[in-house]
Amino acid sequence: MKPVPPRTVGRLTLYWRTLRDLPPDEGSHVYSHYLAAKTRITPAQVRRDLMVVGYTGTPARGYDARVLREHIEAFLFPKTVQNAAIAGVGNIGRALLKFFKGRRPTLQIVAAFETNPEKYNRIFDGCPCHSIENAANVIRELGITVGIIAVPDKEASFVAQVFCNAGIRGILNFARTPLGLPAGIYVEDIDLAMSMDKVAYFSRQSLKSDSMSG
Amino acid sequence: MKPVPPRTVGRLTLYWRTLRDLPPDEGSHVYSHYLAAKTRITPAQVRRDLMVVGYTGTPARGYDARVLREHIEAFLFPKTVQNAAIAGVGNIGRALLKFFKGRRPTLQIVAAFETNPEKYNRIFDGCPCHSIENAANVIRELGITVGIIAVPDKEASFVAQVFCNAGIRGILNFARTPLGLPAGIYVEDIDLAMSMDKVAYFSRQSLKSDSMSG
Repeated sequence: MKPVPPRTVGRLTLYWRTLRDLPPDEGSHVYSHYLAAKTRITPAQVRRDLMVVGYTGTPARGYDARVLREHIEAFLFPKTVQNAAIAGVGNIGRALLKFFKGRRPTLQIVAAFETNPEKYNRIFDGCPCHSIENAANVIRELGITVGIIAVPDKEASFVAQVFCNAGIRGILNFARTPLGLPAGIYVEDIDLAMSMDKVAYFSRQSLKSDSMSG
Repeated sequence: MKPVPPRTVGRLTLYWRTLRDLPPDEGSHVYSHYLAAKTRITPAQVRRDLMVVGYTGTPARGYDARVLREHIEAFLFPKTVQNAAIAGVGNIGRALLKFFKGRRPTLQIVAAFETNPEKYNRIFDGCPCHSIENAANVIRELGITVGIIAVPDKEASFVAQVFCNAGIRGILNFARTPLGLPAGIYVEDIDLAMSMDKVAYFSRQSLKSDSMSG
């Protein structure tokens, strides 16, 4: 089977949310046009994406919302719980621990790691924090396959290496540095500073084009 | 002049970081290949992107690192401080206040907004928090042009509307809902839950392909 592109997986989470938050008065069926309008994606793209989950609606009635939701859930979420770990319990790390707590029943952050002795051997939001030196053992013991990197930039490559050597296969990376991992490890970068720089830049451009046309 | 695509602006921040963090022993000049290797972008793309800032290196010596950095800074960052506001001082909002504090001398978060009376009329990390009802006045008085949305999803569209009506032109949006803003307002979405869903999905796929090839 052809691998599904990351963007398609991302859009499937948007359709899933739309179905989850469907108002009761919407009826039992939805059209691709409805999902498209709610997610700001074209109806043709919605239909193409949904072919991936193996359920096709009918032109007359659209998709059965309950069945479609179940198909997307079977595609997106695992049958058993996936364990995750986070490295770094600074401001961003602790906010993420709170944010992800209980958000998906199938994904649990079961361990945190720190290089700072004032932080490890403590519990943060119900999550035990260990020394990074014990990371490989903890990751293997708990069968952790998902990692979050929220450490200072200069520690990020080292942590990524520890994560991968211990068996982690997917990483959500908040460090502003390339991790340099082998292919086969999926990395999703969230670069807060870059995103903010873009917003600030385009805000100024928008004001400039106003003053020029005015 | 043709508008510069958001991805190009994003990549320019990566080159800028590389130049900022250049080890002293690298010498005064850099080649596009060096910037490419550090940012995991192709040398041809690096050279194309750098044409935007109006400074061309020479094939023999590459780019003068100091001059190139100045050109990128003149492109990316404003000459005077840009004021920003954040809506929502929950976990994510407070982590962002700390993260962005002092990060760019030209961007300052000067106001926070909340619907929760227990949170407004207080100071969070040096930033005064106001009732969202006063947002329009505060934004206009302080000339705020950049907004961050870190409120619960159901409040996000309302906040975005208030922001735009008051003159904000660029938004960093952490809410998991389309904001429905007019063209001309730049929105950068950071969807933490979606990113995590993708990481979890591809981590499972990577393990599956192992077990099939094993």
